[in-house]
Amino acid sequence: MSSEPAGAEPRHVLVIGIGAGDPDHLTLAAVKAIRRAEVFFVLGKGPEKESLTDLRRRMLEEHATGPYRVVDAEDPWRDRTRGDRAGYASAVHDWRARRAEVYERLVREHLEPGGTGAFLVWGDPSLYDSTLGVLDRVAERGTVALDVEVVPGVTSVSALAARHRVPLNQVGRPVHITPARRLDEASLDGGDVVVMLDAHESFGEVTGDDVWIYWGAYLGTPDELLVSGRLVDVADRIREVRAEARARHGWIMDTYLLRRPEGERDTEG
Amino acid sequence: MSSEPAGAEPRHVLVIGIGAGDPDHLTLAAVKAIRRAEVFFVLGKGPEKESLTDLRRRMLEEHATGPYRVVDAEDPWRDRTRGDRAGYASAVHDWRARRAEVYERLVREHLEPGGTGAFLVWGDPSLYDSTLGVLDRVAERGTVALDVEVVPGVTSVSALAARHRVPLNQVGRPVHITPARRLDEASLDGGDVVVMLDAHESFGEVTGDDVWIYWGAYLGTPDELLVSGRLVDVADRIREVRAEARARHGWIMDTYLLRRPEGERDTEG
Repeated sequence: MSSEPAGAEPRHVLVIGIGAGDPDHLTLAAVKAIRRAEVFFVLGKGPEKESLTDLRRRMLEEHATGPYRVVDAEDPWRDRTRGDRAGYASAVHDWRARRAEVYERLVREHLEPGGTGAFLVWGDPSLYDSTLGVLDRVAERGTVALDVEVVPGVTSVSALAARHRVPLNQVGRPVHITPARRLDEASLDGGDVVVMLDAHESFGEVTGDDVWIYWGAYLGTPDELLVSGRLVDVADRIREVRAEARARHGWIMDTYLLRRPEGERDTEG
Repeated sequence: MSSEPAGAEPRHVLVIGIGAGDPDHLTLAAVKAIRRAEVFFVLGKGPEKESLTDLRRRMLEEHATGPYRVVDAEDPWRDRTRGDRAGYASAVHDWRARRAEVYERLVREHLEPGGTGAFLVWGDPSLYDSTLGVLDRVAERGTVALDVEVVPGVTSVSALAARHRVPLNQVGRPVHITPARRLDEASLDGGDVVVMLDAHESFGEVTGDDVWIYWGAYLGTPDELLVSGRLVDVADRIREVRAEARARHGWIMDTYLLRRPEGERDTEG
């Protein structure tokens, strides 16, 4: 690991939220940011994400106005065998450290000091995306000066709510956004719950006749799937739709809102 | 209250998220939606929101391509004297019922069956905005057929995180979004907490030397204010900045993220 000469100009790194899948969910700021970048870093996440990588390339073709380069890289392998909570966090931390090495190398090799590069991030860079965390680690290594700018995007959570035409919160109440593996800690009495990154149909663990689910997959894309209704009535249908879609596409990304409607819980007002 | 003849074409109502304040946070879908609408409904919320109303009008001037009309209306008065929780929900419900009457009248009087009207909503229509709830009430009244479409937007929460260049969640952990009046129910051990709609500097109730705050006001606008740091170190500074800005503008809208960094809480990984 070598350091650069002190006083070298920082490299500008744009972390651009591009929405959940619909190319029209790009913001005007994202389009302008795309036009400022000379190089785009695309990290593959295995064959199941190929269609998402294609979508990004099509966005660049449509919106970039000057010449640009796309740098592909292999994402370091992540240990997914450690299913317990501490093991999960530890595996993610290890993985981020290895990614920091990869990102640092990419930025140093493909971007001149003073140049502008970009990462295109699904949804919004602040919600369950590791790019900012990895870039923090690159900065901590102290061998390359980065100037990071974040362009916020439409989250898959907002896209889900829009397609179902429902608010995420009930009047005056909180919204809890959780990875599926921590759904057991969430209470529907404390507000509505949005579940992300669910590989195991965790909604099956939620009990009560009065719980509603608003479920969506491949949001904003032509493959979009939506199911909503009382959880006890539609859970099996979601399992079927999910299994069929997963088999057909080879991967699935789904998100859902769980709610116990206020009127069924108490009679305030 | 009169009903329309059965079989009348529905009126199309677009509920368009326009981001938190930066005109460039409009999505391409929002721009296209603006171009489809022939009438925009702008409900005033008192003199303190005048600058926000101006911003919306400027967006229309910039993006609408055909002729359009803007219909201004007075928002019904809301009882803000009932500070307890049940009283708050009840006051909001009453207010929504009165707003439903106003919205119904606006839509019936200013939009022909088959026509397209739009509401421009700050941030995202799914998060702490009442437009969808009020339109549901209009539909329940059953006197005018509406066809509602939601265009998701960038939330003030994403805008806050982007400006501070921080993720909203720590690795594998939840995010709890709460109105300030229910901050007392949130635990920083259960994940990070985003506070919205805080009129009373509720961050002052949060204790612990290890809590960080990322605070922002007037996000995305030229008046944007940002303060971050260890809560015990910056709380007084936020109070000062907030009081000064509120006095100068006559109103303030602020949002903040509270976090207990993982490394200071335990040593997993």
